[in-house]
Amino acid sequence: MFKSKLHYLEQWPNHKKIPGTCVLIYDVILEKNPSFKKWLKNFEYKYPVAAGEKLKNIDRLPLHLKNISQLTRNIGVRELTLVAAGGGSVGDFVGFIASTYKRGVRFIQIPSTWLAAIDSAHGGKNAMNISGVKNQIGTIYYPSDIFLMKELLLNQPEARVKDALGEVYKISLIQGGSLWKKIAKERFWNSETLWKMLPDLVAAKYKVVRKDPFEKSGYRHILNLGHTLGHVIEAQQKLSHGLAVLYGLHFSLWLSDLDLNLPYLNEAKSSIKKLRSIERYLKQDKKRMKNKIRFIVLKKPGHPLIKEYSIRELEQAVKGFLK
Amino acid sequence: MFKSKLHYLEQWPNHKKIPGTCVLIYDVILEKNPSFKKWLKNFEYKYPVAAGEKLKNIDRLPLHLKNISQLTRNIGVRELTLVAAGGGSVGDFVGFIASTYKRGVRFIQIPSTWLAAIDSAHGGKNAMNISGVKNQIGTIYYPSDIFLMKELLLNQPEARVKDALGEVYKISLIQGGSLWKKIAKERFWNSETLWKMLPDLVAAKYKVVRKDPFEKSGYRHILNLGHTLGHVIEAQQKLSHGLAVLYGLHFSLWLSDLDLNLPYLNEAKSSIKKLRSIERYLKQDKKRMKNKIRFIVLKKPGHPLIKEYSIRELEQAVKGFLK
Repeated sequence: MFKSKLHYLEQWPNHKKIPGTCVLIYDVILEKNPSFKKWLKNFEYKYPVAAGEKLKNIDRLPLHLKNISQLTRNIGVRELTLVAAGGGSVGDFVGFIASTYKRGVRFIQIPSTWLAAIDSAHGGKNAMNISGVKNQIGTIYYPSDIFLMKELLLNQPEARVKDALGEVYKISLIQGGSLWKKIAKERFWNSETLWKMLPDLVAAKYKVVRKDPFEKSGYRHILNLGHTLGHVIEAQQKLSHGLAVLYGLHFSLWLSDLDLNLPYLNEAKSSIKKLRSIERYLKQDKKRMKNKIRFIVLKKPGHPLIKEYSIRELEQAVKGFLK
Repeated sequence: MFKSKLHYLEQWPNHKKIPGTCVLIYDVILEKNPSFKKWLKNFEYKYPVAAGEKLKNIDRLPLHLKNISQLTRNIGVRELTLVAAGGGSVGDFVGFIASTYKRGVRFIQIPSTWLAAIDSAHGGKNAMNISGVKNQIGTIYYPSDIFLMKELLLNQPEARVKDALGEVYKISLIQGGSLWKKIAKERFWNSETLWKMLPDLVAAKYKVVRKDPFEKSGYRHILNLGHTLGHVIEAQQKLSHGLAVLYGLHFSLWLSDLDLNLPYLNEAKSSIKKLRSIERYLKQDKKRMKNKIRFIVLKKPGHPLIKEYSIRELEQAVKGFLK
């Protein structure tokens, strides 16, 4: 079902308004947040996890499933609600479990990072990793509710704002129009700016997702703008998904013959310069079709296009970009 | 998508007519069948597994996923077809992987047992077990094609025919009408009878499934006829799912005040007499709602009804049945 309800809140939601018997699966680091710790006390069933890519490792899934199965043994399947509180990895992990546990139970997301609040909590995709290769298994399963909370999101270190910019620019470039104009003007990003822009950014993502909620037509593939090279960067370098996407965007715009003055061009070039064996990584690309990669370029903001390149052509283009 | 195409064949399908690049995941025991072994030679990618409940154990899933991921590393996601050749456990296992691997790849079933050919290959359900508890995770994902093959099915020992009877009677009792009349008349079941009846039995299942392909309305819950107690029997005693369902059916018909002269009543009673701690097992029932079990009774053949019983009431009823 495609019907996540969005709730923009200043503070934590009243726990009595969350339907069913909740099992809260949350990033253990949130316990450092006093208001979360207080809210947590409302729930009988909780399961803290260490966030990050390790959480998405398929090897630990059986153990987690056994624990969660044991924890929820007295809760009937129609009563059970799995609530994910955390960033993208927690949302991916809980989303995958919610979609498969007893063939699907109620699922609610409370994103605690900008990346999750802007992008990954929306659109239903979840994923786990196999042998260190990202997002090799997963489903598309929409949360019934998504709580976007100012108190929680502004509790992040200000340094996290930079990590959000990749997805901010990506979705604005796809949407174009007044959203892109607003974003292009903004040069001094901080948490307050992101919170203010959040509803428009999220609405822009749903505008794409709505046309292809279960990735059947291929339309939502345009959301991959900046991601083809972004994923290679992310796999090889210790930096956030959002920053890797921002660097990938610089390359995509260069390949699109567009100069839109996005920030951190020099950082992007020096990061991409360090990449090794791009070919091997691109072969893992889920969007690969025989030897062609379906790569998103922009005609102009608001006009994304799917183009096909061979892996060889993309390698050559990277060299051109770095010249 | 709900659109499995059925192919009733005398012999193995022409491998060139199977779409995509096939990875054949099959019950290793089929290698004893010379015609399968010959057919197998047509495929470059194969992954033999040992069938049975152990295959559905979530603990081994990561290893299988790593192996399959390695085996398929050079096949693009849109080219990949996972073909399951085997009984219910192989279909469940491959179905779960096909539905989640790269968020879903093409899936084809070749059931090799009567139980799979009559029941489990149809309707899209797959499942894995957690800590020995059956079918705790899974999805609903329809194969694009299902090959029902006389040569393969008649290759089973004649003793397997008895294991099929539970699902044969169940679906015929649900459908009622001329199908039930035909089935009720038949007292000497053998492989040829089952093959002859197969298309009608399968059509009867799809008649239910079609009205609720993704188990949203609850309608297909009527397919659970005989299964509530059947699952308890299966969990505790070394017998096939089909036989456990047949025994469970006897109890369901008794609770429905119907005497329809199904075979093996005495076997059913002596099996049910040996059950321990029915309560604990029923608490695991996925169809449980608070303390009520949604149990299927029959008003008459063709008229199933969902009734709610407490676990205590069902325990009492079992005692009544055994008197």
